[in-house]
Amino acid sequence: MATEQTKMDRTERSGKTQNAISPTRQDDYPEWYQQVIKAADLAENAPVRGCMVIKPWGYALWENIQRTLDRMFKETGHVNAYFPLFIPLSFFEKEAEHVEGFAKECAVVTHHRLEAKPGGGLEPKGELEEPLIVRPTSETIIGAMFAKWTQSYRDLPILINQWANVVRWEMRTRLFLRTAEFLWQEGHTAHATSEEAREETMRMLDIYERFAEQHMAMPVYKGEKCSWERFPGAVDTYSIEAMMQDRKALQAGTSHFLGQNFARASNITFLNREGVEDLAWTTSWGVSTRLIGALIMTHSDDDGLVLPPRIAPRHVVILPIYRNDEERQAVLEYCRTLAKELGDKAYGEGRVEVEIDDRDMRGGEKTWAQIKRGVPIRLEIGPRDVAAGGVFMGRRDRSPKDRQSIGRAEFVATVTDILDDIQATLLERARAFRDENTRTITDRAEFEAYFTPANAARPEVHGGFAISPFVDDPAVEAELAKLKVTVRCVPLDFERRPGKCLFTGKDTDRWAIFAKAY
Amino acid sequence: MATEQTKMDRTERSGKTQNAISPTRQDDYPEWYQQVIKAADLAENAPVRGCMVIKPWGYALWENIQRTLDRMFKETGHVNAYFPLFIPLSFFEKEAEHVEGFAKECAVVTHHRLEAKPGGGLEPKGELEEPLIVRPTSETIIGAMFAKWTQSYRDLPILINQWANVVRWEMRTRLFLRTAEFLWQEGHTAHATSEEAREETMRMLDIYERFAEQHMAMPVYKGEKCSWERFPGAVDTYSIEAMMQDRKALQAGTSHFLGQNFARASNITFLNREGVEDLAWTTSWGVSTRLIGALIMTHSDDDGLVLPPRIAPRHVVILPIYRNDEERQAVLEYCRTLAKELGDKAYGEGRVEVEIDDRDMRGGEKTWAQIKRGVPIRLEIGPRDVAAGGVFMGRRDRSPKDRQSIGRAEFVATVTDILDDIQATLLERARAFRDENTRTITDRAEFEAYFTPANAARPEVHGGFAISPFVDDPAVEAELAKLKVTVRCVPLDFERRPGKCLFTGKDTDRWAIFAKAY
Repeated sequence: MATEQTKMDRTERSGKTQNAISPTRQDDYPEWYQQVIKAADLAENAPVRGCMVIKPWGYALWENIQRTLDRMFKETGHVNAYFPLFIPLSFFEKEAEHVEGFAKECAVVTHHRLEAKPGGGLEPKGELEEPLIVRPTSETIIGAMFAKWTQSYRDLPILINQWANVVRWEMRTRLFLRTAEFLWQEGHTAHATSEEAREETMRMLDIYERFAEQHMAMPVYKGEKCSWERFPGAVDTYSIEAMMQDRKALQAGTSHFLGQNFARASNITFLNREGVEDLAWTTSWGVSTRLIGALIMTHSDDDGLVLPPRIAPRHVVILPIYRNDEERQAVLEYCRTLAKELGDKAYGEGRVEVEIDDRDMRGGEKTWAQIKRGVPIRLEIGPRDVAAGGVFMGRRDRSPKDRQSIGRAEFVATVTDILDDIQATLLERARAFRDENTRTITDRAEFEAYFTPANAARPEVHGGFAISPFVDDPAVEAELAKLKVTVRCVPLDFERRPGKCLFTGKDTDRWAIFAKAY
Repeated sequence: MATEQTKMDRTERSGKTQNAISPTRQDDYPEWYQQVIKAADLAENAPVRGCMVIKPWGYALWENIQRTLDRMFKETGHVNAYFPLFIPLSFFEKEAEHVEGFAKECAVVTHHRLEAKPGGGLEPKGELEEPLIVRPTSETIIGAMFAKWTQSYRDLPILINQWANVVRWEMRTRLFLRTAEFLWQEGHTAHATSEEAREETMRMLDIYERFAEQHMAMPVYKGEKCSWERFPGAVDTYSIEAMMQDRKALQAGTSHFLGQNFARASNITFLNREGVEDLAWTTSWGVSTRLIGALIMTHSDDDGLVLPPRIAPRHVVILPIYRNDEERQAVLEYCRTLAKELGDKAYGEGRVEVEIDDRDMRGGEKTWAQIKRGVPIRLEIGPRDVAAGGVFMGRRDRSPKDRQSIGRAEFVATVTDILDDIQATLLERARAFRDENTRTITDRAEFEAYFTPANAARPEVHGGFAISPFVDDPAVEAELAKLKVTVRCVPLDFERRPGKCLFTGKDTDRWAIFAKAY
């Protein structure tokens, strides 16, 4: 076994051409996505329709996302609280567009106990007077509380965030991207003026953009949603939109200016500075475990998951290599002191996280397991490395074959620079990919060709993002639906300039991002 | 207003005799509990039957509980994961005692959408083929996953924890102590041997004990539950039991040795070292937001919440006092630099958390608000303190009148010692109270008198904890029920010594804690 281990390692070092994930992105993108998740052991389908089990490695990603966003929310004056899982039907009905938007896909609790039924088994009993909806989002229940808490302008603003699970009874589900239950945060705020609520809406959108780019290494367009893509009940919805490697868009976070719609529905009133009763202005904003799907599809390759260091639960994995007990002792000792030195170094919001993988597995298999898990830096350390006082390093942003020997002291001194470099490389690569696959289109025929797959058997192969003139008109929605294309957003950073809508021919100075989307 | 503020402050400094919380513990303990929660703004009843809204100050306590326990779990090799909220009825039915224990109080999802009904309003539609139970605990759904993940002894142990919400449809609810929905953590582990599973059960019980005593300053008895108090489906249940200030017991955490019961129900099998198929041994263990109720009832007094520093979201609150803009500027500048100095000091797992309360409120009212919130150290700082280079300090573990001037440098140098002293004082005080109200009883008449309220109008005034000989016999359960007394646990730290059961007359060498309980 020991000898075999070394052999495997040599074979592996001498070059392996097959990919670790089958199929590749090129061959079958949706299946590749499922296989990356499986190979990295991130999550799996639960034996409950549409629900997922988030496994430890996947959950650790969520914990890192939570920790960073939670800090960003607190730095901007928000506090966490917790509201009930259940929303009485009567609350849910208060905002007409809202209930319309969620009624078709919600889990309804109707009974509060089980009793034995004749012939065996149990059945629901104790019917509730009023059915309870398992929250798909919490505007109505939180609005009811805000109404209680708000008497005067001195009680405003209320700046609250909740980390919670929510349920939307989706018919077609996919791990992380669309599941019946998912984890998220939902911010809910109330303000005395429209201006303040608008500022808050944009502040949180900016935080999402910063988080996506700086931590997830995922470039995003930040912009306003069109009328038919708005959150049900919102006045304006803003989103961040990322491009996945199949050139489809993924909405990665939303921030809603709710105007006074929910304040009116929930009766959130206050006495303003002039002593006159007024309706509050509210916002809500959220990101979910969907971000993990976005992370996977932005960076992973045909060898599996690729994690940006700022989100990775481990930064360095050390793979000790030895043939016998004597070597084992020397190698492990070397690995442990190295791990200690690395672990003492500050990185991001904590320290460099190091793992020694001394599982009883063949070396090659173990290395590939760590590649598939996406750990940013791998160090293979054998007796030769110990003798030379070095490490044999592989970076997850480079080919598995592309590895180098570095002096131990040099590696320790530069490990955070290497992590920063991996982080920057992943962001640049994703940005370059997005920019290469984004085209300004002002001609309808070109637009249609851009979004029509050249090969009907490969519907995922199409243009990418189109930047085209936009008017917010139902006729546009209808034309786009035929092409299975959506308006992602009107980016806030685009200059206004004259154009003509490709579908209505109307003049406009607004341009939008159009794309197929998740 | 400025003048009045100073006046209020003088009045306040000269001594206030009335208590901040009405009624007092003495007058009406259950109502005092509700009023402490209200005055500290910890939580309130939600407009959903039996559910609560955990407000920011209450949720911050939960975040601190989570942070510390999460670290303790991870240090002992556990990882977090997330499992579905919903449990299919058929899974729930797999373990007979388990379903029996929870069937009477569970929320059942039966439909997955709402549709308009004739005459207006919405009604549940889309009946599910199989009802889903909103998890009251997750042994059955997690067991189903463990069964998938376990092939060989190499896959064991599995050491997983989940932070989640759970629902138990309690008929009589009370904030934090008993609510239809609550937040908790549930650990679930699977092992190759009975010994390992038993070790795990005790390890987690020890962690709960350490957390209760070192962080919550709450002394606990750690022991084994009797047969009729066991978790439904467990072989053995262990708990930590604390005494509240009304001398009732509160079960603050449980750790269950599940034997092979759930492994059998969920088919968690593995090939052991001998290559023979074997059933795994499992454990589960949990604490919940109930701990916040325990915290309140262990330390709070007739002036409101008292927080042990290790759990307090803020350690020091600074109350600036001034009469005019000129004073304001000097005082606030002094407070800010002081807050910065304090905030740089390490304490517990983070730093000293400082808040400057410069709200536009009368000084006395503001001071009382902070007393009621339970912040361990209050500093009132006015122009005289600035001139003298000092602080005027009040400690929450002492009378509101008992305050002292200290030099600023001395305070900064000793703040963490003062916090440690408050922490130690609260633990000692709670331990002394418990010990004073615990009596060894070997006579049945004395036992009955001990638990019979002297005044029928004040059922809460009774003895406390009794330590008496115990045999695990249904006759004992029946006799105790008449007295409304329960067996809390057979403490692990008690020596075995001969005794005679007060109810059956049987000889035994086991002694238990008996008490009225939450």
